[in-house]
Amino acid sequence: MNKKNVFYAQSGGVTAVINATACGLIEAARANQEVLGKVLVGRNGILGALHEELIDTSLESAEQIHGLRYTPAGAFGSCRYKLKGLNEHKAEYERLIEVFAAHDIGYFMYNGGGDSQDTTHKVAQMSERLGYPLICIGIPKTVDNDLPITDNCPGFGSVAKYVAVSIREAGLDVASMAETSTKVFVMEVMGRHAGWIAAAGGLAAEEEGQAPHIILFPEITFDEKAFLEKVAQAVKHYGFCAIVVSEGLRNAAGEFIASAGLKDAFGHTQLGGVAPVIAALIKSQLDYKYHWAVCDYLQRAARHIASKTDVEQAYALGYKAIEFALTGKSGIMATIIRQPGIHYEWTIGETPLETVANQEKALPRHFISEDGFGITEACRDYLSPLIAGEDYPPYKNGLPHYVRLKNNLVPKKLREYTK
Amino acid sequence: MNKKNVFYAQSGGVTAVINATACGLIEAARANQEVLGKVLVGRNGILGALHEELIDTSLESAEQIHGLRYTPAGAFGSCRYKLKGLNEHKAEYERLIEVFAAHDIGYFMYNGGGDSQDTTHKVAQMSERLGYPLICIGIPKTVDNDLPITDNCPGFGSVAKYVAVSIREAGLDVASMAETSTKVFVMEVMGRHAGWIAAAGGLAAEEEGQAPHIILFPEITFDEKAFLEKVAQAVKHYGFCAIVVSEGLRNAAGEFIASAGLKDAFGHTQLGGVAPVIAALIKSQLDYKYHWAVCDYLQRAARHIASKTDVEQAYALGYKAIEFALTGKSGIMATIIRQPGIHYEWTIGETPLETVANQEKALPRHFISEDGFGITEACRDYLSPLIAGEDYPPYKNGLPHYVRLKNNLVPKKLREYTK
Repeated sequence: MNKKNVFYAQSGGVTAVINATACGLIEAARANQEVLGKVLVGRNGILGALHEELIDTSLESAEQIHGLRYTPAGAFGSCRYKLKGLNEHKAEYERLIEVFAAHDIGYFMYNGGGDSQDTTHKVAQMSERLGYPLICIGIPKTVDNDLPITDNCPGFGSVAKYVAVSIREAGLDVASMAETSTKVFVMEVMGRHAGWIAAAGGLAAEEEGQAPHIILFPEITFDEKAFLEKVAQAVKHYGFCAIVVSEGLRNAAGEFIASAGLKDAFGHTQLGGVAPVIAALIKSQLDYKYHWAVCDYLQRAARHIASKTDVEQAYALGYKAIEFALTGKSGIMATIIRQPGIHYEWTIGETPLETVANQEKALPRHFISEDGFGITEACRDYLSPLIAGEDYPPYKNGLPHYVRLKNNLVPKKLREYTK
Repeated sequence: MNKKNVFYAQSGGVTAVINATACGLIEAARANQEVLGKVLVGRNGILGALHEELIDTSLESAEQIHGLRYTPAGAFGSCRYKLKGLNEHKAEYERLIEVFAAHDIGYFMYNGGGDSQDTTHKVAQMSERLGYPLICIGIPKTVDNDLPITDNCPGFGSVAKYVAVSIREAGLDVASMAETSTKVFVMEVMGRHAGWIAAAGGLAAEEEGQAPHIILFPEITFDEKAFLEKVAQAVKHYGFCAIVVSEGLRNAAGEFIASAGLKDAFGHTQLGGVAPVIAALIKSQLDYKYHWAVCDYLQRAARHIASKTDVEQAYALGYKAIEFALTGKSGIMATIIRQPGIHYEWTIGETPLETVANQEKALPRHFISEDGFGITEACRDYLSPLIAGEDYPPYKNGLPHYVRLKNNLVPKKLREYTK
């Protein structure tokens, strides 16, 4: 029997646990080496396939591969590069198939968000059209938690934990100082179009008066007057006000409150800097002393405070993707299924790629409190298990000891790729 | 024998471990209750003494007090309030002594930075002048690490660890994405006049090419041209550039690169927002896609990633302050003494208050690399042991389970205080 190789790639913004998925996938493939060839990983995501830059993971030790479980970001490089439509740019897909054929690749595993699941779907269609047998499986990943069907997206639980821990800690700080100094603290978090990450901040407030007192969601149009009243109320009742604001907050005209004016390769506007705008507004209207923080990449790279649940799910999805492939399944994305019951239990399931490609799941309105500034119990019930458990990386010299792979490429067999 | 009570207060900006000092102090006092009375803590720092708002710690359980060891920020409230000169505002000092006399306080223990050690010193002088017997002991605390004599300042080691961990993690993130997306990442850290915190970021770079590639210190005048060249070099050689910038960065005219224009009660300008300025400069001159983060309070409140060494030193200083007091020592600040040798070992020592009052210890020039953009081996040798070890708080529902004290006040005996 001819053992086919597996192609795997990471796509889009990286997370604290995307390498845990790679770890699960490579360890599952190694556990099935009587039927599977090597796992070849695209250097810098799908670009690695186009440019025939394939990392040979068989050259990495078991120890190094295991280290991926606790190493954040993309160990093989990721990319923001979206394949065009099938007919629009057929040559790109043909090149992929050409590279896969040259390297005896029978499995295509793509780890990313909604855009990436669309790519996986198109690769599956093209391989069928060209008569090249290829098992195509999508694996979810996005800190934004905006993929449909799956209970949640790997990477999100760890960002959620980081955000909730951070606003709890900063809230205690501000509470200590509020009598004579800072009264308002504004923390900006990610979430371009969906308020999942901002909502996670709400988990920190378990008792009356605890931070955060206000959450500003991208789903709720910014109402300056109601907001300022709420800030003043919090300062009056609790002595201070802690605010979590999503980078995607918009005004009534639908414009982002702050925008860097840059667009990424997917055409999304690059945001950042809404926290200082909100802080300055409070200063000018209420004259409270303020501080603000912008978490940016720190939040999605924070493997040191990763959610154990998140790490386990990320690993399981990678492992299961190989098992699905071995049963001949294709054209699916692996999903997390939440089991009914009071205690959080989950299994890995599957869904056809077309159900998730290019989809975005917004935070439902019933997860946001009536006044638009907080989360509901339903939201808390959903989010709480996703941040459960700690999974600390090993430390050396006081710092997390993350692995650095050799990342040797397999020899090229084809001509250079030019568009 | 009349057992005198102990007054303790936290002053200025709080830290991840200032409560560990309170924990050590209260536990030491409880261990010596045959000779010591209660520990009464100023609500919101020294203001609590002026307003006769004294928290009775004897009403807190041993378990709650022990919980202070792993709870960040100021559990009793802190304040930014500087006592005036002895002659300038004698009434304020007389009020303090009046409150201490009314509550049978024989020990004054003040936990803060250089400004606070000055206050401790003045209280000691005034008690002598007024013939009120009071043992006065200062306990160091400041994330800025700018107190002289002591090897380091409690609070700093944990900020240092947070900053080094954060830039390592964010650096891995940027490295993953740099091929098609973000090439430059700028992280802003605290340190108004001293670059100790920024320097700590340098610990993350243990191998060639690792983040951070550039550190911008308050001690080194910002040289735009040299900086931009260094950024371009890093991007060329490593594919990306990670930068740690101190909030206190200044231009050739001595002005802060970014300033919120606010001043605190000590007359210090409140800073924030140099990261976006640096990022925008890079965009305009080099046209690299960038991201930036501002750590702000998150860095000094981050008990979840505290340095074990820092926690142990903070606790030991509080404990030893009581032991010093019981031997009759007064007019001193407890210090950390680094023992000679390859392995980091430390003991608690003492220094007269006048040697530390209102002093600031800048980062020595030989701790900064010749080009002004990094740290030297000498700096690394000094900093490295301060971030050693992890000391995780307990977790509940996926979040650090920090204690919240009852903070009951002792009944007032005096008239209201008015200036």
